[in-house]
Amino acid sequence: MKQLLYGVAYYFEYLPYDRIDQDIEMMKAAGINVVRIGESTWSTYEPHDGEFDFSKLIYTLDKMDKNGMKVIVGTPTYAFPTWLAKEYPDVLVERQGKRLPYGARQIMDITNPTFRFYAERIIRQMMLVTREYDNVIGYQVDNETKHYGTSSHNVQAGFVDYLKQEFNGDLDALNAEFGLDYWSNRINAWEDFPNVNGTINGSLAGEFAKYQRQLVTDYLAWQTAIVREYTHDDQFVTHNFDFEWRGYSYGVQPDVDHFAAAKPLDVVGIDVYHPSQRQLTGAEISFAGDIARSIKQQNYLVLETQAQAFKTWTPYPGQLFQLAFSHVANGANMVEYWHWHSIHNSFETYWKGLLSHDFQPNPVYNEAQKVGAAFQKLSADLVNLKHAAKVAFVVDNASLTATSGPWMEFGIGEDAKYNDVFRRLYDAFYRQNIATDVLNPELIDPAKYDLLVVPMLYTATDDFLQKLNDYVENGGHVLYTFKDGVANEHVKVRTTRQPGIISKAVGAHYEMFVDPNGEGLADNSGIFKDVDNQISNWAELLETDGAKVLATYDRHWKSYAAITENTFGKGMTWYLGCWPNEEVVARLVEHIVDVLGLADSYHTQFPLIVKSGTNEQAEKIDFIFNYSDEKQAFIMPFAATELLADASVSAEQKVEMAPWEVKIMKRG
Amino acid sequence: MKQLLYGVAYYFEYLPYDRIDQDIEMMKAAGINVVRIGESTWSTYEPHDGEFDFSKLIYTLDKMDKNGMKVIVGTPTYAFPTWLAKEYPDVLVERQGKRLPYGARQIMDITNPTFRFYAERIIRQMMLVTREYDNVIGYQVDNETKHYGTSSHNVQAGFVDYLKQEFNGDLDALNAEFGLDYWSNRINAWEDFPNVNGTINGSLAGEFAKYQRQLVTDYLAWQTAIVREYTHDDQFVTHNFDFEWRGYSYGVQPDVDHFAAAKPLDVVGIDVYHPSQRQLTGAEISFAGDIARSIKQQNYLVLETQAQAFKTWTPYPGQLFQLAFSHVANGANMVEYWHWHSIHNSFETYWKGLLSHDFQPNPVYNEAQKVGAAFQKLSADLVNLKHAAKVAFVVDNASLTATSGPWMEFGIGEDAKYNDVFRRLYDAFYRQNIATDVLNPELIDPAKYDLLVVPMLYTATDDFLQKLNDYVENGGHVLYTFKDGVANEHVKVRTTRQPGIISKAVGAHYEMFVDPNGEGLADNSGIFKDVDNQISNWAELLETDGAKVLATYDRHWKSYAAITENTFGKGMTWYLGCWPNEEVVARLVEHIVDVLGLADSYHTQFPLIVKSGTNEQAEKIDFIFNYSDEKQAFIMPFAATELLADASVSAEQKVEMAPWEVKIMKRG
Amino acid sequence: MKQLLYGVAYYFEYLPYDRIDQDIEMMKAAGINVVRIGESTWSTYEPHDGEFDFSKLIYTLDKMDKNGMKVIVGTPTYAFPTWLAKEYPDVLVERQGKRLPYGARQIMDITNPTFRFYAERIIRQMMLVTREYDNVIGYQVDNETKHYGTSSHNVQAGFVDYLKQEFNGDLDALNAEFGLDYWSNRINAWEDFPNVNGTINGSLAGEFAKYQRQLVTDYLAWQTAIVREYTHDDQFVTHNFDFEWRGYSYGVQPDVDHFAAAKPLDVVGIDVYHPSQRQLTGAEISFAGDIARSIKQQNYLVLETQAQAFKTWTPYPGQLFQLAFSHVANGANMVEYWHWHSIHNSFETYWKGLLSHDFQPNPVYNEAQKVGAAFQKLSADLVNLKHAAKVAFVVDNASLTATSGPWMEFGIGEDAKYNDVFRRLYDAFYRQNIATDVLNPELIDPAKYDLLVVPMLYTATDDFLQKLNDYVENGGHVLYTFKDGVANEHVKVRTTRQPGIISKAVGAHYEMFVDPNGEGLADNSGIFKDVDNQISNWAELLETDGAKVLATYDRHWKSYAAITENTFGKGMTWYLGCWPNEEVVARLVEHIVDVLGLADSYHTQFPLIVKSGTNEQAEKIDFIFNYSDEKQAFIMPFAATELLADASVSAEQKVEMAPWEVKIMKRG
Repeated sequence: MKQLLYGVAYYFEYLPYDRIDQDIEMMKAAGINVVRIGESTWSTYEPHDGEFDFSKLIYTLDKMDKNGMKVIVGTPTYAFPTWLAKEYPDVLVERQGKRLPYGARQIMDITNPTFRFYAERIIRQMMLVTREYDNVIGYQVDNETKHYGTSSHNVQAGFVDYLKQEFNGDLDALNAEFGLDYWSNRINAWEDFPNVNGTINGSLAGEFAKYQRQLVTDYLAWQTAIVREYTHDDQFVTHNFDFEWRGYSYGVQPDVDHFAAAKPLDVVGIDVYHPSQRQLTGAEISFAGDIARSIKQQNYLVLETQAQAFKTWTPYPGQLFQLAFSHVANGANMVEYWHWHSIHNSFETYWKGLLSHDFQPNPVYNEAQKVGAAFQKLSADLVNLKHAAKVAFVVDNASLTATSGPWMEFGIGEDAKYNDVFRRLYDAFYRQNIATDVLNPELIDPAKYDLLVVPMLYTATDDFLQKLNDYVENGGHVLYTFKDGVANEHVKVRTTRQPGIISKAVGAHYEMFVDPNGEGLADNSGIFKDVDNQISNWAELLETDGAKVLATYDRHWKSYAAITENTFGKGMTWYLGCWPNEEVVARLVEHIVDVLGLADSYHTQFPLIVKSGTNEQAEKIDFIFNYSDEKQAFIMPFAATELLADASVSAEQKVEMAPWEVKIMKRG
Repeated sequence: MKQLLYGVAYYFEYLPYDRIDQDIEMMKAAGINVVRIGESTWSTYEPHDGEFDFSKLIYTLDKMDKNGMKVIVGTPTYAFPTWLAKEYPDVLVERQGKRLPYGARQIMDITNPTFRFYAERIIRQMMLVTREYDNVIGYQVDNETKHYGTSSHNVQAGFVDYLKQEFNGDLDALNAEFGLDYWSNRINAWEDFPNVNGTINGSLAGEFAKYQRQLVTDYLAWQTAIVREYTHDDQFVTHNFDFEWRGYSYGVQPDVDHFAAAKPLDVVGIDVYHPSQRQLTGAEISFAGDIARSIKQQNYLVLETQAQAFKTWTPYPGQLFQLAFSHVANGANMVEYWHWHSIHNSFETYWKGLLSHDFQPNPVYNEAQKVGAAFQKLSADLVNLKHAAKVAFVVDNASLTATSGPWMEFGIGEDAKYNDVFRRLYDAFYRQNIATDVLNPELIDPAKYDLLVVPMLYTATDDFLQKLNDYVENGGHVLYTFKDGVANEHVKVRTTRQPGIISKAVGAHYEMFVDPNGEGLADNSGIFKDVDNQISNWAELLETDGAKVLATYDRHWKSYAAITENTFGKGMTWYLGCWPNEEVVARLVEHIVDVLGLADSYHTQFPLIVKSGTNEQAEKIDFIFNYSDEKQAFIMPFAATELLADASVSAEQKVEMAPWEVKIMKRG
Repeated sequence: MKQLLYGVAYYFEYLPYDRIDQDIEMMKAAGINVVRIGESTWSTYEPHDGEFDFSKLIYTLDKMDKNGMKVIVGTPTYAFPTWLAKEYPDVLVERQGKRLPYGARQIMDITNPTFRFYAERIIRQMMLVTREYDNVIGYQVDNETKHYGTSSHNVQAGFVDYLKQEFNGDLDALNAEFGLDYWSNRINAWEDFPNVNGTINGSLAGEFAKYQRQLVTDYLAWQTAIVREYTHDDQFVTHNFDFEWRGYSYGVQPDVDHFAAAKPLDVVGIDVYHPSQRQLTGAEISFAGDIARSIKQQNYLVLETQAQAFKTWTPYPGQLFQLAFSHVANGANMVEYWHWHSIHNSFETYWKGLLSHDFQPNPVYNEAQKVGAAFQKLSADLVNLKHAAKVAFVVDNASLTATSGPWMEFGIGEDAKYNDVFRRLYDAFYRQNIATDVLNPELIDPAKYDLLVVPMLYTATDDFLQKLNDYVENGGHVLYTFKDGVANEHVKVRTTRQPGIISKAVGAHYEMFVDPNGEGLADNSGIFKDVDNQISNWAELLETDGAKVLATYDRHWKSYAAITENTFGKGMTWYLGCWPNEEVVARLVEHIVDVLGLADSYHTQFPLIVKSGTNEQAEKIDFIFNYSDEKQAFIMPFAATELLADASVSAEQKVEMAPWEVKIMKRG
């Protein structure tokens, strides 16, 4: 990118009356320089099978062009027309044997050849129209693609073929590896392969989940290849990835392998939605941004984030401004709201845009004007910011899906799911202002980091675990958690003592685990003194093989370790064998940060969050955010220029932060 | 009616042995003078297709006739025989694509021609039998009719025809009005119209709900016309309407437009079920009675209410007596229990009748004897009581269904649904003893009232809102709430600043709304001093255009108004922009009652409830109820005769009320 | 049995590698002398239709034989092969009109002739193999068999035939008895009989549940007859019965009539799973064991119980040892864990065995070694222990299913379901160390007991209730509860005053019942002085006909009795008319125990539990368990030998019990 982009999703097709001129005028007044269009209006562009009408698209592109507005065009395939459902009902996805009714978006079978035929045709037709426009800076293929649970006959057949290849046609090997003798599930002929929808076999289900993620990867690659036939050299192709949704972007996406699916793209795009008002912490912007930035180790686009959105999220004064720079601070080159104006009918009527239904300026729009002005002013300082993290998280959707099936439900409870563990660890580093990357086992290069954090990597290959051991032996550091390393890549629990291969580096092992059931932690190191020692859900009964015991349990299991620290070769490991509260995790992280000397220069903690990067002029830029309703202050470690205020700050100066304020420091 | 009716539902068909003579004797001993029969025993009357056996019906009618008991005959169509389901499975309603299994009542497709054919035949056969009886005072068509979610192919086709008519065949107009371009839902040919069951479009869903309500209206009109071919001049036709069910009669019925459906009937009948024991307030009897009375501005029948009913409702001593007069005080000419005896098998075994399963006198039956005696004694004083309310509620099932779909679920929560808002407002007036009518936008004549209360009229025509503005300008008064006037009649949110058309009379507007998220009210008028200021769920950020600000918010949004009062022309409006607790609503209502001088003469409040009416002798009758476990007292504002005790009461006399007591005063 | 058996379920088929020699070695080191094999691996034994491969079974049997290990062989039919589902999809059970998908166990239609054909063939083939082994001591037919909700066409047809027989083809009688006129459900021709899945008639549903239980009885009798064609004289046939599952064995099994189904078996087998760790009370082991022992009035087998199992159950040190003797104390001749090793894939990966996934010795395995040693040492003292209970519970699955349908849902709430009531009563006797049998109305011989406890026998024949009256009149004692005796055997509520026939012996009756709704108990006897008097859910308004009132209600219903005591003929009854808390029930039981002199010699209470039996040498054996985390002590009432410690204990000696300890005393 050559500049910071500030954008909105814009749907001319949804407008109750033509007000595009006023809209563009208001956008420009707010410094908005890019719109995203087209990604869900197929039925407008192809009103009847084979009959195309791009007049509204062309009208919009023309207007944008004339007004110097950049455009990102979305292929319109994530919602499809009524006529297609009428003509070919089997384009509707079949989920658990039930075909979804027409109505919502994201209800197609992405593997269905009929769907593919029609999707390809509309994409090609649309590309022929849009390729003519120089103001189109890039394309987004589809939107928030998932596999939608597709499991129809062809998917079942495809999965069997996939397994045949994986096991070289050796059914006995498959039966043995997946443990299919259990409950008479053994498959003795490929043609006996049952529909996997009903399976109770965690290995089979885990493999099917992997196959379904592959379908998403394939689908996006297919669309990308089509689009690329038409793009100019200076146009990018992106996709809008989203995250596990718990009413907001919560954690690792179970249904898409972001790392694999992003390969054919030029730039990663994401949508990020998060709690706001009193509940705003910035943590979701941070973890989602870290993932987006880590995938290609480059800057990314926020293709969607909230303006007014829900009534629980309508930003307090100051927050919209702060939020825009929260994204930039993390490496985003674009902040784009979903969406320009609130919709007057339909489903997302109260997922509000920058404008309310009345299209009038309002406090949120007014604050967007300040964002736009600041983006324009600071673009050269802030675009293409580079980040260098010394710490990386290793995340894995296979471990996520493997630990979320019914085979993990026996009293295992709801409070330590994969993303709960990821987030509790992630947030602890975030709140202590430790910059992090987030990668998966396939992409990570351990040698680049001082510390790896490996939350609940339940299923992993021997090779990867051995690689982690080697990393530690050669001077690396790893923070492990309970359930790490338990099963192989086919979700077969290892037959060695746990935590299996990594035991060697951990310097401890366990034979049993229990529910805490009232059991607490006992400090054994001073690190957890006077801490709320309650644990829940999971407690591995660790026995040390040389590791230092940082904490034990405190009652029936007090002879066992709960948290350990070990030196292995030139490196160190920490092992968190139970599920403690945030305070305990914070103490452990603080200890590790201390041991490894990872602390940042500002020496602040949440709610004062610091993010740092290096700009194209090789200048060091620090962002300081006050994510709270209260005033905060800190001591400036360097002399710097405060960019928003155009003011000098001297080293050791006390800097005051208003509630929900952001300051941007250029060092020196 | 010529007298107060006291009745029971009576099912000779359900009796474990023939005890009709003892039953009638016990009824007469209790002053019961009418029975309702026949409404759910089709399979007894037509044991095989085309083979009729009305012997049990005739036997019952004969016995009742000989004993001077009046009879209301119900057509038996709301439950149908096994043979009909066997012969024609498609008479079973298809809901969301799934045909219901045989078993329960109310599982027919009321639009199915086969069902109509058989229903018509049994009705005609039954009418030929029952028309011979002079003691049959009236007929009830069907029972608690709803559309049961019918959405089979013919209903889908009918709905498309209905839309074609509404939009004069102009699909573009429909697409524009309903916003169907959204998510590619645009319909470009009538034959592409998708099954509406899967729609995510709130306008389409709202219109379909309206169409389904029309099906009920049509069905009842059809049955009424058949029955009328046989009725004598002195026989009435009624229907038993019920209300939104939350374990009891809670509020406006979403699935039936009572106001439209009642048109062909002579008299409105309702069923009313309500909390009892310590939870008895009388509010459900009042709101349901107000609706029933308002529909035709005449007296109504309580066709069903509870005797013993559920174990949570078994009345405390005194309550059954009090309850009978609660209905009469509201304008009921009949109080009829569901049902005479408790059923020994099947589904409603523990929905108990006046008699337990043992058919013996019991405390509840014994109290019914007192009711019967009092009804006989006071019939001339209390029958055909006329009511005059100065306040009317405007309710609307379209607003109810429009605000309850998934498009209103984005964090909007569960605590301010349509009927919650209706009931919190209604109950506030009820508890302050302000008489009210309840009407819908089609039927209301604003000029008849001093004050209209308009809770959450989310969807409304421009015309009606303009009419309300005119009413205020000419001296009327309206209490509005949040979400009033937001969308047009097709649930399309207005593009003007909110609350749209009524802003003019309200003297305020808002561009944004938020979730309170801890925000409270700040008193700005003295009205809300020292009140519990918590609000929840919804807070419109009101800006005054001249209105007086009665309360603002108290934290992040304190520059905005929350409750306003305005003078417009000769009239006034109040606008409640947020969802406060009962106390705040009570204060606001108290204030308005005060400003408009609406207080009743007794100056009491809940738990002392007063209801007043004028009898056929033009005498003013006051009922005073103590809905509490504690003794209460009040000062009598007039000299009067206490009718139940046959005692004189002088003006200014202190009158004591026992727990759960009722007193009836004839003024003068 | 000739000795105590200590066993594990063993699945050679599930092993990740062949380690049978090490496994057997470790078993023998732990004193394990029996394995259960084969019950769920059909697909291994018959890989293709008609192609058999018993090599793994034979290998296992050979190894066990060579090592002197006994074997119980299970028929493999409760899980079936993929090829069978592919060839004949209709072997999959259809539940509520929906065919279950392939995957889990227990998804077959046990009435399906195709399934029966294939099941019979594999059983016969397997018997031909296993009959050759002398170390096979017995067979288990199927596993935890239920009807799985089977309700396909043939089951519907079978049910209609069953009703035809029961009512001698008299539909009028059926309509009358079941009250089918209600809601037009009357059936006027057998061919009109609707699918019973949709019924709302409690009598019809209750009868169908009875019919479904009969299907289970028939199925097990069928399998048993096949197996018996092959067994030797010294081999037993058993089945593994389980109980209502609420995450553990909670109470009476609704779907199987254990008492009827066990008839063809030689010995009753059960599985028992129960809370452990701090939540261990022994109560589930006790009630389940009482049922198992009472069925045939002989010793039983624990075919499955927990080793490590769930993380919430991993036993504290001492508990595994204590648990083994908890079973023996109750009359078990075998304690068998499910299962030897934890499974590495599939569904029950975390339903852990004696060994973890690493197959290494661990604290639980180590404790099993102590159990095995003690079993060997004490076998002659403890095998075939006989019990004599003076108190019997009468339980009834028809009453369970009759009180759990939707017809009992009208505000009746969740806290007094059948098994809640059974367990609250049962546990009160258990905690006061009163030995009990548990039988059903068909099998019980009242004369054998001093006291019968009859919880919620809602549906019962006149004959049985009359038999109870006679028993009391002749000197017996009965503790009745609310809802006893209400309906006849077809769930038709009696038309007499309640509690119907037993009123005579109870000396009280009620016409109405209410929800307590804040009402409490008022002590009228000193028994309930200073007790927490809250009641919930159900309160019958009892009026005495001579019974002594032990407690009344305390507010609106204070004129009514809540708990009564009556002398009738030479006997006595108690009637608990409401649902009080555990404390009130304990007081009542204490009072009855006192009146009847039922207290045991140890005069202890929970957590010190005593169980006594007589061994084959006619010696009296007492087991004392400390089910708590705290030390306990008691005074020894007799001189005895403490068997585990080989120590003498003198009468009046104070004996100390460590947490979770068991002591075994041989009196004298």
